Amino acid sequence: MNSDDLTFDTGLLAPIWAGSPAEAATGDLAFLRAMLDAEVALARAQAAEGLISAGAVKDVTTAADALAREGTRTLALLARSGGNPVIPLVKALTKHAPEVHLGATSQDIMDTAFMLVAARTRAVVTADLDRTAVALARLAAAHRDTPMAGRTLTQHAVPTTFGLKAAGWRELVLDARDRLNAVVLPVQLGGAAGTMAAFEALVPRVDERRLLAGFAAQLGLAEPRLPWHTLRTPVADLAAALAFVTGALGKMAADVLVLSRTEIAEVAEGTGGGSSALPHKRNPVGATLIAASARSAPALAAVLFGSLAAEDERPSGAWHAEWSPLRDLLRHAGGSAAHAAVLAEGLRVDAGRMRANLDLTGGLIVAERLTAVLTPAIGRREARHLMERASLRVAADGISLRQAVLRETGPGDLDLTDLDELCDPATYLGSAAALTDQALTRRPAGDHDA
Amino acid sequence: MNSDDLTFDTGLLAPIWAGSPAEAATGDLAFLRAMLDAEVALARAQAAEGLISAGAVKDVTTAADALAREGTRTLALLARSGGNPVIPLVKALTKHAPEVHLGATSQDIMDTAFMLVAARTRAVVTADLDRTAVALARLAAAHRDTPMAGRTLTQHAVPTTFGLKAAGWRELVLDARDRLNAVVLPVQLGGAAGTMAAFEALVPRVDERRLLAGFAAQLGLAEPRLPWHTLRTPVADLAAALAFVTGALGKMAADVLVLSRTEIAEVAEGTGGGSSALPHKRNPVGATLIAASARSAPALAAVLFGSLAAEDERPSGAWHAEWSPLRDLLRHAGGSAAHAAVLAEGLRVDAGRMRANLDLTGGLIVAERLTAVLTPAIGRREARHLMERASLRVAADGISLRQAVLRETGPGDLDLTDLDELCDPATYLGSAAALTDQALTRRPAGDHDA
Amino acid sequence: MNSDDLTFDTGLLAPIWAGSPAEAATGDLAFLRAMLDAEVALARAQAAEGLISAGAVKDVTTAADALAREGTRTLALLARSGGNPVIPLVKALTKHAPEVHLGATSQDIMDTAFMLVAARTRAVVTADLDRTAVALARLAAAHRDTPMAGRTLTQHAVPTTFGLKAAGWRELVLDARDRLNAVVLPVQLGGAAGTMAAFEALVPRVDERRLLAGFAAQLGLAEPRLPWHTLRTPVADLAAALAFVTGALGKMAADVLVLSRTEIAEVAEGTGGGSSALPHKRNPVGATLIAASARSAPALAAVLFGSLAAEDERPSGAWHAEWSPLRDLLRHAGGSAAHAAVLAEGLRVDAGRMRANLDLTGGLIVAERLTAVLTPAIGRREARHLMERASLRVAADGISLRQAVLRETGPGDLDLTDLDELCDPATYLGSAAALTDQALTRRPAGDHDA
Amino acid sequence: MNSDDLTFDTGLLAPIWAGSPAEAATGDLAFLRAMLDAEVALARAQAAEGLISAGAVKDVTTAADALAREGTRTLALLARSGGNPVIPLVKALTKHAPEVHLGATSQDIMDTAFMLVAARTRAVVTADLDRTAVALARLAAAHRDTPMAGRTLTQHAVPTTFGLKAAGWRELVLDARDRLNAVVLPVQLGGAAGTMAAFEALVPRVDERRLLAGFAAQLGLAEPRLPWHTLRTPVADLAAALAFVTGALGKMAADVLVLSRTEIAEVAEGTGGGSSALPHKRNPVGATLIAASARSAPALAAVLFGSLAAEDERPSGAWHAEWSPLRDLLRHAGGSAAHAAVLAEGLRVDAGRMRANLDLTGGLIVAERLTAVLTPAIGRREARHLMERASLRVAADGISLRQAVLRETGPGDLDLTDLDELCDPATYLGSAAALTDQALTRRPAGDHDA
Repeated sequence: MNSDDLTFDTGLLAPIWAGSPAEAATGDLAFLRAMLDAEVALARAQAAEGLISAGAVKDVTTAADALAREGTRTLALLARSGGNPVIPLVKALTKHAPEVHLGATSQDIMDTAFMLVAARTRAVVTADLDRTAVALARLAAAHRDTPMAGRTLTQHAVPTTFGLKAAGWRELVLDARDRLNAVVLPVQLGGAAGTMAAFEALVPRVDERRLLAGFAAQLGLAEPRLPWHTLRTPVADLAAALAFVTGALGKMAADVLVLSRTEIAEVAEGTGGGSSALPHKRNPVGATLIAASARSAPALAAVLFGSLAAEDERPSGAWHAEWSPLRDLLRHAGGSAAHAAVLAEGLRVDAGRMRANLDLTGGLIVAERLTAVLTPAIGRREARHLMERASLRVAADGISLRQAVLRETGPGDLDLTDLDELCDPATYLGSAAALTDQALTRRPAGDHDA
Repeated sequence: MNSDDLTFDTGLLAPIWAGSPAEAATGDLAFLRAMLDAEVALARAQAAEGLISAGAVKDVTTAADALAREGTRTLALLARSGGNPVIPLVKALTKHAPEVHLGATSQDIMDTAFMLVAARTRAVVTADLDRTAVALARLAAAHRDTPMAGRTLTQHAVPTTFGLKAAGWRELVLDARDRLNAVVLPVQLGGAAGTMAAFEALVPRVDERRLLAGFAAQLGLAEPRLPWHTLRTPVADLAAALAFVTGALGKMAADVLVLSRTEIAEVAEGTGGGSSALPHKRNPVGATLIAASARSAPALAAVLFGSLAAEDERPSGAWHAEWSPLRDLLRHAGGSAAHAAVLAEGLRVDAGRMRANLDLTGGLIVAERLTAVLTPAIGRREARHLMERASLRVAADGISLRQAVLRETGPGDLDLTDLDELCDPATYLGSAAALTDQALTRRPAGDHDA
Repeated sequence: MNSDDLTFDTGLLAPIWAGSPAEAATGDLAFLRAMLDAEVALARAQAAEGLISAGAVKDVTTAADALAREGTRTLALLARSGGNPVIPLVKALTKHAPEVHLGATSQDIMDTAFMLVAARTRAVVTADLDRTAVALARLAAAHRDTPMAGRTLTQHAVPTTFGLKAAGWRELVLDARDRLNAVVLPVQLGGAAGTMAAFEALVPRVDERRLLAGFAAQLGLAEPRLPWHTLRTPVADLAAALAFVTGALGKMAADVLVLSRTEIAEVAEGTGGGSSALPHKRNPVGATLIAASARSAPALAAVLFGSLAAEDERPSGAWHAEWSPLRDLLRHAGGSAAHAAVLAEGLRVDAGRMRANLDLTGGLIVAERLTAVLTPAIGRREARHLMERASLRVAADGISLRQAVLRETGPGDLDLTDLDELCDPATYLGSAAALTDQALTRRPAGDHDA
Repeated sequence: MNSDDLTFDTGLLAPIWAGSPAEAATGDLAFLRAMLDAEVALARAQAAEGLISAGAVKDVTTAADALAREGTRTLALLARSGGNPVIPLVKALTKHAPEVHLGATSQDIMDTAFMLVAARTRAVVTADLDRTAVALARLAAAHRDTPMAGRTLTQHAVPTTFGLKAAGWRELVLDARDRLNAVVLPVQLGGAAGTMAAFEALVPRVDERRLLAGFAAQLGLAEPRLPWHTLRTPVADLAAALAFVTGALGKMAADVLVLSRTEIAEVAEGTGGGSSALPHKRNPVGATLIAASARSAPALAAVLFGSLAAEDERPSGAWHAEWSPLRDLLRHAGGSAAHAAVLAEGLRVDAGRMRANLDLTGGLIVAERLTAVLTPAIGRREARHLMERASLRVAADGISLRQAVLRETGPGDLDLTDLDELCDPATYLGSAAALTDQALTRRPAGDHDA
């Protein structure tokens, strides 16, 4: 370790993604490898079109492998003067492989490397989203009929089920997966200003379209309709999809945090985190970290959406402003997905506590139903008034809603033979089970090819 | 005008959207109408399922029409206590139509109204995007072979064409159109906590799925798989699509602003704006306003992405935080599209000035090509060095690159018979024309049904 | 009401600020009045320096009053072509007052009007922050010794007091007040490009500095060191202060939302909001709306910080992008402060429930203390281990921590004569009372002059 | 290098800060050192108050030094389970120093470490801002009377001077410096829930206030009035100040980018960056990177403002979401300042080109002045009309404004003896020089102590 190591980030401030597959897939060495992969693929595609020789390709491959072993710090420091790391990278490669990077521009390599990194990271994120969805499907099925309080604006509203809640989380996870996998990730290859002119200068009758197709095929990325140096659709699409992933998982985390509260205690993370001061505490650490990512990702996505407005054939700022937020978004999404999978697979659900909490309001949680049932007999308005009076009694006298309703109604006024059942929250679940069943029929869409 | 008018916003601070179709489609009265449309549609759907009578539907319709005429300020003020305008709206309707809103929750109506407003605004935004795309196609075709300087990091790089630039703008406009039209806009109908329980309480054997389908059909919106009170996919999708629209148009605006500069003067808005101080000025006002929207929209989208992490069955804040940014995003997108259509249709292009600017660097703009052409004869490294020396001469001696190259090369060293043509920027356009042609083959995707 | 009314915003989607003093202070008519005030003040200052006659000032005043009565919609629509409302405003005034706006540029008036509106809104926001701080001081004093659970990462940690919590809220409110009042709000007066050249052209030996001072004095705003058309310190400072206000109040709201939960029920808003579906519900609406503002304001501030990077002597977009977010920030801050004052003044605190919740963990909430007390006798490590074993017993056997500790320790091992008191959460409050007392000695800083 | 190295960030994607002093001051090792410094300072302060022995302090110091040498990756990975790196750090220290961290909570150390890192980074940022301000003062003085075009909405408006422009940049730099240095950076020390209770549990009659003061004194940080675990004023203040720094420098960068354009060419960076494809290009790389930071920083600040709304005594997400954006903001500010110093010190200014560009509009740039001068003779309205006609002639006939005015006015109509001077842009500079002089009298405020 030399003095430069002082500046390295090793994930110390990023427990959301430290050690996750997405972190490894987006590290500086991963980017170096992706940039070198792009140069090698370009050389191969150019050889296939007769621009360079097979020997030149071999030189590029050898030089790339050598450079990969030298690490990234020197390139990082040299990148300051030109503004991007491809310039020193090409300079280094050229020493041993003079026909590297022919006709290309820095951005061709940088953008292509980013798409490669995004594709590789997407694979690991998708895998963790799939694990999460599978675990949530299991939870939803297991708790299809587990009643719990439905809460709105922090207050008990009407009953729902934990199955429907978990099915809803899964729905968002699948929505996230679909959006992420729908993003088209193309290679970039346009030369200095996106006209591909230099290829022609090198070999007059080169077929640029075939060159582009070959380049894309080498890397398993899509072939773009136009060079997209300042047509940043892929970046904006990634921004939206990755912010969606963190937000979707953030919904599950937000619910877990509420339901984990000491006073509520309906769920607990399988492996709660400790505390430096309090040995007894079991903190919902996974949900906390996912929630933290969901707070950060939208702002990062905003920077990327802002970079759509990129002037000229390469902008002075908008492009450079993409790199750090896009990498961080990949990491937030990947780190969140990794934590979410563990969270969903390990979540402990306390159905008894859910039931106990349902009863906390003395039956007020089914007030809506009683109002509806009373309406045919005494009219909608009077039913509402009666229930309001009864509700006040519940609060004031500490009695149950059942008792309060009996006090408010005269004998014979109402046919309340079913009052016991009507007052049971567990029987007022509406379509929760049917909705859960229906949601669980959804299958993940197929993965994108590129 | 009474004292309340003091608080009204009439677009004074919003020249981007004042007077645009999107403004009318998203005004408070438009929202009131959409909320009332939702209540009426719900009543109709309930009547179809036997929950209420035909007479009750008529009451709702009549009450809704009456309320529509009363304006929105009173509702706005009453909304403070419950936190949303549906509560006082339902209270007002109930006086004359007691069977309105049965089994529904405020959010059912508010969310559905927002989707209706979004659908109606989308139609006008799409129309202006289409106008813009048509105008850009015309520009791209007309200037398919108009050479101009390609600029990167503010500097001339290599030549490109205005046709390719306009084709790129169109590509983004079509991308924006596709994304906006792909957003699924569903009705919302879940009742107090998303279980649809109240419908069953009202009529025991009601088919909630058919009720939902009927409600959606009434409004021309999609039928959701699950109630989405806290599964905010439609809102996040709108956020992404609308931020994309403003960003995509922001790219065109950014370029127009650069190219309109007094010193560059390659394009001008058809109707430049005046100045309060300077009568001679013709400002690129349309591009300026579009650029301003592109600066604001990403932040608004970030708020909406942040609301994905909504706790419980209705969150205390995340939902309420959606309304203003979502409306503003619709307006930014709609206002930008309206200005963009005018801008694209009226843009004046000065091909002569483009040509003159191309020559500003004395031929340096084709330095890349000369390097490539010299390489076979003298080697890649020496070609680069020669061009560097020649470039310095151009700057130092004020001569052309052609002259400088001739001074650097000895007689007979190089076969430069074509030097005149090689130094002509207009002949170094690479695949610009072919790329333009190919881009213009793209057709807009069909509109979404919902 | 004519068709244009369709587009008016009357606060329907903004329950956070509808009807608040900040809304009236920032409405379109308020802006119109401020722009006209700026023109009149400029005329007066110019008359004082001999640039125009007293009669001309009278013409300006008369024309301004007339225009104020015509409303803002026409100006809004006319603003589209020039990009800002001052251009048509000056045109309208000039008809009757030809010497209006002499030497000024649109931005001089627009910026000055914004500072006037900000100053006027600041006054009402500060008043509501003061009300809030007073109410919180009362709460903190009243509950100086009211124990409650301290919660970290959603879990009970150690006891604290409600007094300390309320004192903390007040601390943030005072911090917000200080930051808001420290913002310097200057007039703007630089002419077309910030050189004040036109004044000299009008009257050769005019003293621009005195003109500027007179203009500022007329309006009660600060005198800037330089024209700040693209030196946007005042706007960035406002952004930071206003985002701080909403965030500071958002902290109080976040706590109220947690403590209001049905299961926790330690506080309740004085006037809880109703529900369209559930008559019994009392929602924490004020806290919800404040929380919603705290979610939106940071993004708006980000747009304004982004506008610092404004090119040239007037930027094409960055300036125009300020108006809507800056107004909305003023409204979010003002609306939040108005709701916060009501919330703080009416908050109902249930000390009994706080005490009951404190006991929910069977004493685990004082585990930290017992560990510390056991350490001298048995060592730090063993004390931790013992407490971990005891904590597990509490969870497993449903006994109190006191009982569990007794079972873990042999007779005579430990001097635990004070165990009852040690296990009482109400006696483990540390410096809570002293910190509360100290915090309450803080007084609001004086208001800013400008 | 082992496989973990794959994940390290070495600045490859961050040319804005790679190799800058701010990068070293904010690296993971810097954070580790700051956390250890905080633990050592706490031990010392506790020893001073009699909580622990001098020997215990020595153990802590020794253990801290040992841990500092082990690097950060292991801690980063261990931080996942508890959610922050202090938990494993304390665990590691405790093995050799059992009396470390007594009574403290993770957040005490993490927050204090962040304030230490902020203080250390502030010092290097301030130094670079000072260099920048000195260089800009020199430029402003040197070009006090160098006329150039004032540009608004991309168009020439009226003349200004480069001196005034540079003085404005400096004004913003000094504003930034003032704001950054005004931020109060306090230690954090509250224990598990901010009551400081554990210190009392350890030693009954400990004076918490003195302990706090001692802790602060050890580290050279401020003493807070209250524990600020969820009163995040220091973080929000840093966010605002750092976003201001990047925005202020972003203004200078935005101007440099415009003025560097090939067609304008009025300034050039001393060391323009190369291109991977185009050897002749000299890109404004420094300005580009600063501009990129100015695009990113506001979004990061927004995340931090959003974290003000932190629930409970430690929030589940809002706190964790601060770390990465706060560090990145420190780096953006520091990297921007480092680049800005180089940029300002090396900027090449081409006064001749400025003069040439001033003449591009054939005198229209002084149209405002001629209107003013004509007004006394022919009235304001006719003066405007005459100038509009003349302006059209300039554009249509390619003549100068001087010629056009002469054609529009009849002989003897006007006393235009000074027309030559009136048409000279260099004589229409208003107060530019006086404003520059005045701005240069401003001195940087003193540095903050903490």
